[in-house]
Amino acid sequence: MEQPFPNKVEHLNTIFYPQSVAVVGANKVPGTVPYDMLINILHSDFQGVVYPVNPREKAIAGVKAYKYVIDIPDPVDLAVIVYPSTVCHMALEQCGQKGIKSAIIISAGFREIGGVGVEREQQLLEIAKKYDISFIGPNCLGVINTDSAVNLNASFARQMPDSGNIGFLSQSGALCTAVLDYAQARHIGFSKFVSFGNKADVSEIDLLYYLGNDPKTKVILIYLEEISDGRALMKAAEEIIRKTGKPILAIKSGRTEAGASAAASHTGSLAGSDEICDAALRQAGIIRCQNIEEMFNLATAFAYQDLPKTNRVAIITNAGGPGVLTTDAAIQEGLELARFSEETTAMFKKTLPKTANIKNPVDVIGDARADRYSIAVSQAMKDPNVDGVFVILTPQSMTDIEAIAREIVNVAGRFEKPLMASFMGEKDVAVGIDILQRNRIPHYTLPESMARSFAAAYRFYQQLQQEKEEFRPFEDVNIQLVQKILEEAKAKQRRHLSEYESTQVLAAYGLPVVESHLAKSAKEAASLAAQIGFPLVMKVMSEQVIHKSDLKAVALNIETEEEVARTFDRLINNVKERLPDAPIDGVLVRKMIPAGEEVILGLKRDVSFDGVIMFGMGGVLVEVLKDITFRIAPVAPSEAKSMIREIKGAPLLFGVRKRAPKDVAALEESIQRLSQLAVECPQIKELDINPLIVLNEGQGCFIADARIIL
Amino acid sequence: MEQPFPNKVEHLNTIFYPQSVAVVGANKVPGTVPYDMLINILHSDFQGVVYPVNPREKAIAGVKAYKYVIDIPDPVDLAVIVYPSTVCHMALEQCGQKGIKSAIIISAGFREIGGVGVEREQQLLEIAKKYDISFIGPNCLGVINTDSAVNLNASFARQMPDSGNIGFLSQSGALCTAVLDYAQARHIGFSKFVSFGNKADVSEIDLLYYLGNDPKTKVILIYLEEISDGRALMKAAEEIIRKTGKPILAIKSGRTEAGASAAASHTGSLAGSDEICDAALRQAGIIRCQNIEEMFNLATAFAYQDLPKTNRVAIITNAGGPGVLTTDAAIQEGLELARFSEETTAMFKKTLPKTANIKNPVDVIGDARADRYSIAVSQAMKDPNVDGVFVILTPQSMTDIEAIAREIVNVAGRFEKPLMASFMGEKDVAVGIDILQRNRIPHYTLPESMARSFAAAYRFYQQLQQEKEEFRPFEDVNIQLVQKILEEAKAKQRRHLSEYESTQVLAAYGLPVVESHLAKSAKEAASLAAQIGFPLVMKVMSEQVIHKSDLKAVALNIETEEEVARTFDRLINNVKERLPDAPIDGVLVRKMIPAGEEVILGLKRDVSFDGVIMFGMGGVLVEVLKDITFRIAPVAPSEAKSMIREIKGAPLLFGVRKRAPKDVAALEESIQRLSQLAVECPQIKELDINPLIVLNEGQGCFIADARIIL
Repeated sequence: MEQPFPNKVEHLNTIFYPQSVAVVGANKVPGTVPYDMLINILHSDFQGVVYPVNPREKAIAGVKAYKYVIDIPDPVDLAVIVYPSTVCHMALEQCGQKGIKSAIIISAGFREIGGVGVEREQQLLEIAKKYDISFIGPNCLGVINTDSAVNLNASFARQMPDSGNIGFLSQSGALCTAVLDYAQARHIGFSKFVSFGNKADVSEIDLLYYLGNDPKTKVILIYLEEISDGRALMKAAEEIIRKTGKPILAIKSGRTEAGASAAASHTGSLAGSDEICDAALRQAGIIRCQNIEEMFNLATAFAYQDLPKTNRVAIITNAGGPGVLTTDAAIQEGLELARFSEETTAMFKKTLPKTANIKNPVDVIGDARADRYSIAVSQAMKDPNVDGVFVILTPQSMTDIEAIAREIVNVAGRFEKPLMASFMGEKDVAVGIDILQRNRIPHYTLPESMARSFAAAYRFYQQLQQEKEEFRPFEDVNIQLVQKILEEAKAKQRRHLSEYESTQVLAAYGLPVVESHLAKSAKEAASLAAQIGFPLVMKVMSEQVIHKSDLKAVALNIETEEEVARTFDRLINNVKERLPDAPIDGVLVRKMIPAGEEVILGLKRDVSFDGVIMFGMGGVLVEVLKDITFRIAPVAPSEAKSMIREIKGAPLLFGVRKRAPKDVAALEESIQRLSQLAVECPQIKELDINPLIVLNEGQGCFIADARIIL
Repeated sequence: MEQPFPNKVEHLNTIFYPQSVAVVGANKVPGTVPYDMLINILHSDFQGVVYPVNPREKAIAGVKAYKYVIDIPDPVDLAVIVYPSTVCHMALEQCGQKGIKSAIIISAGFREIGGVGVEREQQLLEIAKKYDISFIGPNCLGVINTDSAVNLNASFARQMPDSGNIGFLSQSGALCTAVLDYAQARHIGFSKFVSFGNKADVSEIDLLYYLGNDPKTKVILIYLEEISDGRALMKAAEEIIRKTGKPILAIKSGRTEAGASAAASHTGSLAGSDEICDAALRQAGIIRCQNIEEMFNLATAFAYQDLPKTNRVAIITNAGGPGVLTTDAAIQEGLELARFSEETTAMFKKTLPKTANIKNPVDVIGDARADRYSIAVSQAMKDPNVDGVFVILTPQSMTDIEAIAREIVNVAGRFEKPLMASFMGEKDVAVGIDILQRNRIPHYTLPESMARSFAAAYRFYQQLQQEKEEFRPFEDVNIQLVQKILEEAKAKQRRHLSEYESTQVLAAYGLPVVESHLAKSAKEAASLAAQIGFPLVMKVMSEQVIHKSDLKAVALNIETEEEVARTFDRLINNVKERLPDAPIDGVLVRKMIPAGEEVILGLKRDVSFDGVIMFGMGGVLVEVLKDITFRIAPVAPSEAKSMIREIKGAPLLFGVRKRAPKDVAALEESIQRLSQLAVECPQIKELDINPLIVLNEGQGCFIADARIIL
């Protein structure tokens, strides 16, 4: 097949499709990892050949063993290293000498324990580099490939999962065991299953690309504990989704550390790194899940059936109560109850009992048996107004659960539309649920999960329809000027830019600053005022004056030249009183910005994702409700659009209750320009525009105050 | 035992503890309700005697049958009627003649089908009244009492549930079947299990009181589709929780109809009847659940163990990843990770492996077996800084799941503190989960559910500690004056009170209106202004002028007598232009209220709960974010307090970012006084105070504008 994604493709191919595997450090002690590894490979109907390697054993589990890999007479594709961490490097060295290019290092005791472990891991990397070896791990559970061409279970998991079209990647080995067990019970099958541990060499990015290429994988799942290279992750995800249409579902743990990592500055304090991670994953098109159950609820919806083309669902139930609960769930997830075609309605009238409710949600009544379910469900599937069917069953005394499950499987097979089921209860309905799951009909214990999964599949369908817009840099920016200002400030080891400098920087990137001049004297101020025109704002410029209003270093609504002169002296005195030895550059004289809607724009740096753009409503909404949203820079036009629309206060900008709609287009441009500044000037550590005043449509927006931190 | 709640106690006792039962309408056709009913009673080891009643059968299932109940030679305590709806009334009539005082009417075909069904139900009620019969149903699944003193399964459920301390009430019969099946699989036991159907006679209120009395019931669960008498429900719940300390968990379906039922008026449009229901249940101390799973997650936490006294939990896990996920969940649910005592830390250092993480969450490492779990868990339970323990298990190759489960059961038995477990996975861990569930250890598939359940139990503990405050009516109110005004308006068939009348009504209830007078002429206005003092507000009074600002019928900031006179004429003209034939009462002259925080107070009527008080922040927050909250009138002081504190915008009132704290005490009083007005003057259909301006602490709050609809 064509390989759109080159990352380590060949090496990974030998890891997943080896003809020969050496288990380096295998032993004879059942219940230990070195033994279980060997047995798992041997007993999973592996299509290649396995070589146990152990200096002290002639044979293990009936298979001839070799002292060292170099002693193996034949070529070896893959080495699975299960030695204690203290000797792994020697084993890997020998693999290199033997010419083995791929390895899985199971052993723990490396970076995760710190200190000496970190050195050991470094050592492995050097050896791998020397011999051009790619390896997964260390500190992992191993790799499983259910492809019948190889049947590889190179892991110490208790069981080989069913084969299927879901690819699973996990940073936590322990979680893998839980996932395998969970999936087994639901007959959920996997294409590839990888525990990548410390990802010292092969990273989650390489593996994502590999699953992107893998024709056996339709849906990609990943569990992450730390994101080392956020941008590479986003890039990989975007490419894979765009080129292959495969959904990527992720669990990222460590949510609540967010609060802790909040930064000091004003906008910073609103930004929790998890909110940023959340935004980044969404921006990359990754669907973030809160837990294993949600992940597989969605995964089965994606893996088993076509994506819904609209959100109009039909509900078929044998009980009113659950019908109501399901309707609630559907509406809350943004789905619509389909209005049946006349044909459908007529058909229901004819075939369903008088007491049945033939409107959506359709209640086929407690005594419904398989035949009635069959009629109702297939008619609903047939209806052009319906794009998905939810089948609800409660185990009543006449309910023939098994037969109904079989009917549902039949009907589902005859149509292209998604069909989901919820057999409520557990013990009696288990037999029916089992039939559904074996036949790949998505089943959900709760109507909520069913509706949520359908909605997620529908949203993903919409996402695939949209042309992904690229960010196009603005050409009218003056990066040289900005660099000059930043270098000067750096030379002076200053942490803040003065407001005057900030204004220049923003102006250089076409951000809407207002004409302003620095006056050294009351006289100069007055004459500048005359040129600029009234009303005016005046502000003292001093690198020590950060929160100006606290220091009474600002004056608004100045109407006359005399007032300008008086104000100049007053402001200077205010500052001198409070900060006697603050060096004062002068007083900034600036035209007043007419009233408008106040918003805030910010730029901060995140450890995993670097430049982050923050947008929110100003005033009460940001202070009290933290009504803000994030994107990773650069921010494409479509992303700028959605940023503005997704905050709670958005209606204020689009005209609520007789308010005039504001110049959202200008705001969108500002967001994009700021994001370009974030990318092109990494020296800027933090930037707050607070407030940015957005005027009515067509009248633009203006920066009332800004701060830049280096 | 002592019977704090008298509702129908005796009749209900004979329904739940009958010595003799007649199954009226039983037949010989397996798989039909009339047959299943009889068999279920016969085969559930019933301690009394059963009489099948059927005109055409000598015996059914080997038991002598009687033509009619009256033919039964012995006294009969309970009649279970399974005849078609068309003849039920005759059966009930005969029960009356036979002197039977209690019945369960299973048959469907009554109120739920409308029309003739409604009449049939009415008929049943009349017969019941005539003979002083109490009956459950019609249109229900029946009643189950697992008390070994009687072992009654008078239902057509497929199975008799285990005996336990959870009482379950459901309006939907079908849901019962799902619940029984769900519970069976988890070994969840019930004390009483009731499907009350159309609740024509015995209501959910009667049954709640009955379970309140029932010594076998520790936790009460109820599923409701419609709440007919909301206030009675609240009263019952409050009494039961206060007097018995039994938690009440409720599912109320039909959530999303909320939007639809939104009323027309401004505040009304924000009030969805489901939000009100939500508020009412909370106010009554009922814990509302979203679905069956959540309900039983909480129920087991309440039923199996003591309530946690604080929120400090310890997490014991054999895998890092799940440990992190659980920590996230705990923090998000408002729990704290306990800091271990020195003794515990020392003990962990000594007994756990080097690589184990001995800080909370404690990672006992993947190769942990029962012994290590036992040490860690019991030490954590011992620790005085720990008030609950979460045990996480992932099925790794060395994990002896069964033994660990048994150890957990042992340890849990030795302490009074709650211990919850999550064995992650499904198939392999099933054996362990089964052991936990049989031994009443709360088990959760997801850490989220575990944390949520623990948090709910802790909140309920706190709720029980608080002295429930009663609402004490204010005595300084002038109800006569209000009644007079309302009757006059009614006499004139007016739907609105004029602002002047509204002001009088509010003043009569001690709500903070501002001194104001009605001027008939510009001259009078000017002289009134002189008395009142400046600055002033002027508003045209006319019953046809509702939204004054739209009609330019308001003027603010009037500073001089001349201005008053001019404004008088201008305002009158504005109104005459727009509403030529609006009858004008005059112009209200009122002192301006100084600037403060704007909030809104409202009163509306709800079908189930009647008087509802609404409170929210004014301006942007209410318009854009619907930042409001509800309580059912009257509103006790503590409730008024929490109303103010629970809205998103609350910080604005308590002083955020250098804002002065506002006079919250005055606001709380206004809320209570308004709630008293709601109770004492049912003629008021709707009342909006928008805005109420809250000044700084100690300076009170003032009503700037108000509307009363009759």
